[in-house]
Amino acid sequence: MVIEHAELSIIPGQEAEFEAAFERGHKAIAQSPGYQWARLIRQIENPGTYLLLVGWESLEAHTVVFRGSDLFQQWRAAVGPYFASPPNVTHYNGELTPAEGA
Amino acid sequence: MVIEHAELSIIPGQEAEFEAAFERGHKAIAQSPGYQWARLIRQIENPGTYLLLVGWESLEAHTVVFRGSDLFQQWRAAVGPYFASPPNVTHYNGELTPAEGA
Repeated sequence: MVIEHAELSIIPGQEAEFEAAFERGHKAIAQSPGYQWARLIRQIENPGTYLLLVGWESLEAHTVVFRGSDLFQQWRAAVGPYFASPPNVTHYNGELTPAEGA
Repeated sequence: MVIEHAELSIIPGQEAEFEAAFERGHKAIAQSPGYQWARLIRQIENPGTYLLLVGWESLEAHTVVFRGSDLFQQWRAAVGPYFASPPNVTHYNGELTPAEGA
């Protein structure tokens, strides 16, 4: 599995709107071939920063298939207006299914 | 749940040694009160960067209890020699238990 790691910096004061928009945008991501799961978590030290983690079947499922699709345009149309700066995106190899006591 | 997010930059060429040391260091973390799970994943764009995610019962379980304990000293003694720079640590609020199709 490949994990997309996207740091999202949100325009101050628009966090609630972003979270609602994320629900819509996530529906687009989840339709893309190779999508496995997604989680959005919010930073404690800087609550304007969110971390989006997405599990993909392969690197290309994200960087080629999703980014080249209309679904990506739908995702960015939903959440892009709330970004204070371009997302900082990297990818990681590994499993990420936290289990009790693991 | 609070998720510790630690970016670890490893001295070039010492990644395999670090991974072995992590196995030892993790045993120390896992004994700390409030520990729930941990995952170590390796960046694709820069394979010298690892991301350590640790689920804690609360922020204080990490920042006060663990960091103030002998277990923290054991953790740093195991992995610290492989760090190219001090870890970049933040915390996130939220659940992080990826589920099929979620």
